[in-house]
Amino acid sequence: MPQLRIALAQVNPTVGDIDGNTARTVEWTRRAAEAGAHVVVFPEMSQTGYPVEDLAFRATFAQASRNSLDELARRLADAGCGEVLTYVGYLDHDEAGPRDAAAALFRGEVVAKQYKHHLPNYGVFDEHRYFKPGTELQVVRLHGIDIGMVICEDIWQDGGPISALGKAGVDLVVAPNASPYERSKDEQRLPLVVRRAAEAGAPLVYTNQVGGQDDLVFDGDSLVVGADGKLLARAPQFVEHLLVVDMDLTSGGHAGDGALAGLHVHRRVLSAELLPAYPPLTDPVISEPLSDEAEVWSALVVGLRDYVHKNGFSSVIFGFSGGIDSAVCAALAADALGGDNVYGVSMPSRYSSSHSKDDAADLARRIGAHYREEPVEDMVKVYVEQLALTGLAEENIQARTRGMLLMALSNLDGHLVLATGNKTELAVGYSTIYGDAVGGFAPIKDVFKTHVWQLARWRNDEAAKRGETPPIPENSITKPPSAELAPGQVDADSLPDYALLDDILDDYVEGDRGYADLVAAGFEPETIDRVVRMVDRAEYKRRQYPPGTKITFKAFGRDRRLPITNAWRERKA
Amino acid sequence: MPQLRIALAQVNPTVGDIDGNTARTVEWTRRAAEAGAHVVVFPEMSQTGYPVEDLAFRATFAQASRNSLDELARRLADAGCGEVLTYVGYLDHDEAGPRDAAAALFRGEVVAKQYKHHLPNYGVFDEHRYFKPGTELQVVRLHGIDIGMVICEDIWQDGGPISALGKAGVDLVVAPNASPYERSKDEQRLPLVVRRAAEAGAPLVYTNQVGGQDDLVFDGDSLVVGADGKLLARAPQFVEHLLVVDMDLTSGGHAGDGALAGLHVHRRVLSAELLPAYPPLTDPVISEPLSDEAEVWSALVVGLRDYVHKNGFSSVIFGFSGGIDSAVCAALAADALGGDNVYGVSMPSRYSSSHSKDDAADLARRIGAHYREEPVEDMVKVYVEQLALTGLAEENIQARTRGMLLMALSNLDGHLVLATGNKTELAVGYSTIYGDAVGGFAPIKDVFKTHVWQLARWRNDEAAKRGETPPIPENSITKPPSAELAPGQVDADSLPDYALLDDILDDYVEGDRGYADLVAAGFEPETIDRVVRMVDRAEYKRRQYPPGTKITFKAFGRDRRLPITNAWRERKA
Repeated sequence: MPQLRIALAQVNPTVGDIDGNTARTVEWTRRAAEAGAHVVVFPEMSQTGYPVEDLAFRATFAQASRNSLDELARRLADAGCGEVLTYVGYLDHDEAGPRDAAAALFRGEVVAKQYKHHLPNYGVFDEHRYFKPGTELQVVRLHGIDIGMVICEDIWQDGGPISALGKAGVDLVVAPNASPYERSKDEQRLPLVVRRAAEAGAPLVYTNQVGGQDDLVFDGDSLVVGADGKLLARAPQFVEHLLVVDMDLTSGGHAGDGALAGLHVHRRVLSAELLPAYPPLTDPVISEPLSDEAEVWSALVVGLRDYVHKNGFSSVIFGFSGGIDSAVCAALAADALGGDNVYGVSMPSRYSSSHSKDDAADLARRIGAHYREEPVEDMVKVYVEQLALTGLAEENIQARTRGMLLMALSNLDGHLVLATGNKTELAVGYSTIYGDAVGGFAPIKDVFKTHVWQLARWRNDEAAKRGETPPIPENSITKPPSAELAPGQVDADSLPDYALLDDILDDYVEGDRGYADLVAAGFEPETIDRVVRMVDRAEYKRRQYPPGTKITFKAFGRDRRLPITNAWRERKA
Repeated sequence: MPQLRIALAQVNPTVGDIDGNTARTVEWTRRAAEAGAHVVVFPEMSQTGYPVEDLAFRATFAQASRNSLDELARRLADAGCGEVLTYVGYLDHDEAGPRDAAAALFRGEVVAKQYKHHLPNYGVFDEHRYFKPGTELQVVRLHGIDIGMVICEDIWQDGGPISALGKAGVDLVVAPNASPYERSKDEQRLPLVVRRAAEAGAPLVYTNQVGGQDDLVFDGDSLVVGADGKLLARAPQFVEHLLVVDMDLTSGGHAGDGALAGLHVHRRVLSAELLPAYPPLTDPVISEPLSDEAEVWSALVVGLRDYVHKNGFSSVIFGFSGGIDSAVCAALAADALGGDNVYGVSMPSRYSSSHSKDDAADLARRIGAHYREEPVEDMVKVYVEQLALTGLAEENIQARTRGMLLMALSNLDGHLVLATGNKTELAVGYSTIYGDAVGGFAPIKDVFKTHVWQLARWRNDEAAKRGETPPIPENSITKPPSAELAPGQVDADSLPDYALLDDILDDYVEGDRGYADLVAAGFEPETIDRVVRMVDRAEYKRRQYPPGTKITFKAFGRDRRLPITNAWRERKA
């Protein structure tokens, strides 16, 4: 039977770093060649990183991306990898405009270029803004095997290029992807790839990007599925990985260029002879998807680590309040960067409880973080006395004084400040702008409060299972949450019980459900009114919050864009 | 000759306020009826305001918008306006998804509904995210006149609905618009409408929204052009206006529904008989476009006023530094809200010059603003001593202390804080996050520094012409700009000369030009390197800046969306 060894290069590019990404491609292709691969497939736009946003409009950037292809082809040949058919993604630009493109490189040349056909323009995607769609399909024959390609969204839409390839006839389809992580997305991905392989009548090789880019994180989860729908190989999530798989293929000797439903199929023969039979690799890697908690935790760790490192920082600083949010952020930061790169600051005011400081110090010891105490009492006092502050103004100045203190330490020592707020707080605006919202990144911005607690327990349990010290103090998990900005204040004074609140928010924010639906779901009208009013008023605060790793469909900021000036009020019909 | 009196209702709706917008439509239609109009045309999505952003996905909102049409039709009939054919815009939703729609109401009923065909997805527009395109065209015959409609972008694209209407045959085309202001846009708009009227072979009635919505401002500039390209009427910019015009029309008796290039034309007869001849109105209003400075100033005033009022505020507070930026913001705020709603705070530090305080106090007197002095010395001292701050950390804490002080006063007294930074500072990141970037709105965010000076001189000259006190102290215009965060500091220590800097920024930011283009334009390579590096590093700061009125094509925030994590560096090829 015709054979071919395929490598999927699940790599972590950096947006804009064309030189670095090119070097990575050379290195990983060399590794693929060493592993005996005949084909290697990189992710979508692997030369530029994804998404490039408005960099797509910069002519010099598109030119650099195009030029990098020829250079890459030469360097691959120089590195002795010219015989490996290498699929990479890049930004192209022609008379119609920018293009999301992929190319196949072989023996020092670019042998095929293809533009993405389907441009997603929902959720986090704005591709109609950036790209013009393609209508061509490039099929190359390598060792007698006809290989077609499609790019990312091309496999998410019914009909289109995959079905055209199926009709035209191919023996294998490769698909470079940059498909952002979303909770339980792997449950959609595998069945989809299975369906498309059946449509193509050929095995499908799906390579996905891995790593963080601003508020997006890519989980990898690259996979290979046979024409019969059998899962042949699967890479682990959230790590760079070279997945190598041997495939038994058909060699249909498909022929004919031509038009199919508006798409043009072009064929090019690189080598017509089948490979001599060789002993295949045994036991291909078929990684199990992570558990829900492990998956979310990994997404948050990788999103945080890449944001910090790719922006040129190595360490982070933030308030250790003794509460659950900062404790979970600290555990994430220690997992992402190492405890020695985490700087915790306890910033007690006159309203801070003694357990706050104890729990904060305990946290720092558990994760091996740096720790200092900087009371804010003296700063707060000057404001309160000079301006005669009371009420909300006095509460806010405490939070703001802490924000300014952290920024000052960041300016002195070069640490990136983290904002430790969670999605529930952001949703209802239970946060002080320029206070706890200060920072360059917000690791748990897209995690509801009840989920924060779940993750804390899960992470501690994992540590216990491995015989390690649980990172999060038990007291931070169990005590009632409080902002401690006024005497005896607890969150429950201002907000419904978090379990109830998160249920409503899940329906109202994630589900975009209306008042009547919420009543039908059994929530009390007064609670609905209260929550909905808080959510609708908080858009400005949400927009001012730093970016943070997206893990849900409706992450604030990137996925949900409401007007600030907005008089709409959800209410009884 | 067949006659018809048309009213263009150039109104200022509020996004989300369907009830208020409906009431406005009734009121303005009543006024149109009183003026004897047979047809009144409101702007695009006049029932919901434009743009609604992700509110488009909220089923209850779309339902409320749809329901408001029937209610509006009834209320118009009840108000005695049933005989006025009323075109309004609204958000529709059918099985395909949300629709940007317009409807014609007559005698208590909705007699025609049409969806926008061309969905803009560039610059500030993301309509492929929100809407599905329409393919139907509704032509109604009123008093023997066949009236077709198109929506906004439908007239900006060649071919499509206008040319289909031309082929099908109509006597008049009405076009509801929400076309945001951009400097000198009126120079594009009139020639475009002239061209489309020729294509349609019929006069074109173009009604545009007026007023501010977050960072967008709509200038109105509604107009009527004859089939021969003659400008028949034009509304003044930046104010609500009912433009009434009498038209001599053809009455082609066009017939036949049918398909034209994928578009379906539907016809409905409301009344076939021509109107008895009546004496037309003489001297239709043909407003002159404003001068460039007056236009920009009006855009900034209206953008600021509507942001403040539509968000429920009536007054603003910000730092009066004695410099040009805060002086221009103060003059804008006084023009927008009245001097009595402007609260200036001088916040001297040890590095503040005495002229800063004098100029600030002079500014307040000139515009009739409230004024107080709040030294920040005591607050700064606590931070500097407790944390041993030096250098940048010490500079920043001064700016941040001022930001916190303003927020505290805002929390006490309910004024909206304004950030007074200009586009040049934002471009190069010459701004302190959580310092001078604090605020809910940034009036001159999209105005380059050299343009700020121009506007200041123009505004003072206008005052002098009218025999009023020029609002801006001459000294604020003429002295060298300084942040005054260190002894003897001036902007020129950190930045190239503003005239040079703005020239480079205009090419690099507005023109998206590359390194080689900048060299070819005659800029020195070292200066280019320096500016480009500053711009490319400042994206996070720009994102944290409050919204502000957009006046250029590439306003930061809304029009230009670069990755924060971005390793691309513009450089020699």
